[in-house]
Amino acid sequence: MAAFQSEILVRFGHCDAAGWVFYPRYFEMISDFVEDWFEEGLSASAPGLFHHKQILTPSVHFTVDFVKPTRYGDRLTFNLWTVKIGNTSCELRIEASHQGELRMRVRQVLVFIGAGSGRSTPIPPELISRMHRFALEEAAAPEHTSPPPASAPAARKRKVRASP
Amino acid sequence: MAAFQSEILVRFGHCDAAGWVFYPRYFEMISDFVEDWFEEGLSASAPGLFHHKQILTPSVHFTVDFVKPTRYGDRLTFNLWTVKIGNTSCELRIEASHQGELRMRVRQVLVFIGAGSGRSTPIPPELISRMHRFALEEAAAPEHTSPPPASAPAARKRKVRASP
Amino acid sequence: MAAFQSEILVRFGHCDAAGWVFYPRYFEMISDFVEDWFEEGLSASAPGLFHHKQILTPSVHFTVDFVKPTRYGDRLTFNLWTVKIGNTSCELRIEASHQGELRMRVRQVLVFIGAGSGRSTPIPPELISRMHRFALEEAAAPEHTSPPPASAPAARKRKVRASP
Amino acid sequence: MAAFQSEILVRFGHCDAAGWVFYPRYFEMISDFVEDWFEEGLSASAPGLFHHKQILTPSVHFTVDFVKPTRYGDRLTFNLWTVKIGNTSCELRIEASHQGELRMRVRQVLVFIGAGSGRSTPIPPELISRMHRFALEEAAAPEHTSPPPASAPAARKRKVRASP
Repeated sequence: MAAFQSEILVRFGHCDAAGWVFYPRYFEMISDFVEDWFEEGLSASAPGLFHHKQILTPSVHFTVDFVKPTRYGDRLTFNLWTVKIGNTSCELRIEASHQGELRMRVRQVLVFIGAGSGRSTPIPPELISRMHRFALEEAAAPEHTSPPPASAPAARKRKVRASP
Repeated sequence: MAAFQSEILVRFGHCDAAGWVFYPRYFEMISDFVEDWFEEGLSASAPGLFHHKQILTPSVHFTVDFVKPTRYGDRLTFNLWTVKIGNTSCELRIEASHQGELRMRVRQVLVFIGAGSGRSTPIPPELISRMHRFALEEAAAPEHTSPPPASAPAARKRKVRASP
Repeated sequence: MAAFQSEILVRFGHCDAAGWVFYPRYFEMISDFVEDWFEEGLSASAPGLFHHKQILTPSVHFTVDFVKPTRYGDRLTFNLWTVKIGNTSCELRIEASHQGELRMRVRQVLVFIGAGSGRSTPIPPELISRMHRFALEEAAAPEHTSPPPASAPAARKRKVRASP
Repeated sequence: MAAFQSEILVRFGHCDAAGWVFYPRYFEMISDFVEDWFEEGLSASAPGLFHHKQILTPSVHFTVDFVKPTRYGDRLTFNLWTVKIGNTSCELRIEASHQGELRMRVRQVLVFIGAGSGRSTPIPPELISRMHRFALEEAAAPEHTSPPPASAPAARKRKVRASP
């Protein structure tokens, strides 16, 4: 199936004194992008989950490769796939490219927890079924000029370690 | 009386693609510096006020001049004086300098509010008395190579507009 | 004439532990919004000015009132008017509202400088004429439920102090 | 050998609307902490490398586990060890704990590159020898109440993939 896709413009304030994106700003972009996926891809407002259902979705794991540097003014295309969908957690794969050139590759694990208890809580069933629409199929795996990382297939099969 | 003083190192991530401090990062420095003033200058932990007394101190006003740019690696000396101390709000003057050269001049107004009600709440009396120790005296006014701004004396006498 | 307008969604990461927008994040929004104004309102790419013309537009002054707090998930409508357009600097007025309720009011002064020299440089003439399209007319002054600040008219007439 | 250690106070602005550290802020802490390691641990000023030697040290890889959430006002103890020191890159292990409880575990790969060329450049020899002082010895591996991750030993032995 298709990835969830969005474009993010690299702002002046995303860049550091070397003129490239400062890596904490990449994580801000990821946070915004995943919020947009909830809103537009899963039809589940992230603020709504928080304010009305008291559900939080903290990230508990990241594996990130910054493949090439990115400059002020570049427009990055972000793609997101679901890799593993568990009962209370899900694993995402995110890639950011500029004009077809891979800039960042991310494996991210989110857990669903109750804001009051701080404990893991089941992902609402309607979200689970929508998450499956973005499942990364082997045949649909992204292609890039750079070879895929050796560890990626293993990562995809690895069980999610959800330890909030 | 003496100003509250602290030194802040300009980090790589504070700077933008031009190599100078990006102005939102200056406001992060101000936020951290005012937290340190609460902790060390007023003997009142800001996290403690928040967690235990449910008191928040949002800023409702800023007047800021960025007098000279600041580079990665510069060590800024921050100074803070109280200018006006009201029942539920206080006005601060903050200056940041590098080796005696003024870089930023700030007028900031904080209000005290209850986290639950969102309404203004009296500043705890012990804080008020400690705030007076940092009062900006006319005679102790800071001197700089650059002339003081024409609007500053008026600003100092203007009544605090506290509108949370 | 019409203001330049854009909508900004308040993100999870914009908010602080109290659940409201943390003020340095407001300044990040302002920075992005002014970049969008350059790109869409002035047909002058901010990255292009930086990369190709070596022109920077640092902010040298802010007067900001945070009128009401803003929560995660709110959609803020930003409006921008030009107040004073000089040879090497311009003064902007920016307002952010949520469903017609004013949340933030900003006076900002930008200067144009050469990236190499660090000295002020004339605003390109084609930008000046486009800036005038967003001039704040008295008749077109924004209306709000809250009364306009007493200091605003004076501020509008005050000469720009551009001192980087 | 001993880790490089530093304490970082969790600020109001580090926390999100849920009251916990927002993960992009953790990466800002990591960036500052690694800068301090250069300055204090390696006697090599990071701004100096940048300004005078035109050497940049971008991060090209992160593997991060957020083991437990962290609240406003917590004081985190950061520890850093070198895991692998190559010719132009080094792999670090960083852990952040609060009162002995592990909060974050990081594997980070830095590369040294020339600011002008954008190409990898040898780590200055005096830095290499100082980096070895912080080498993670198996016998000195950190202990925690939580079991070590299954993947950590493998990660430690894995060759650095330095792909700027």
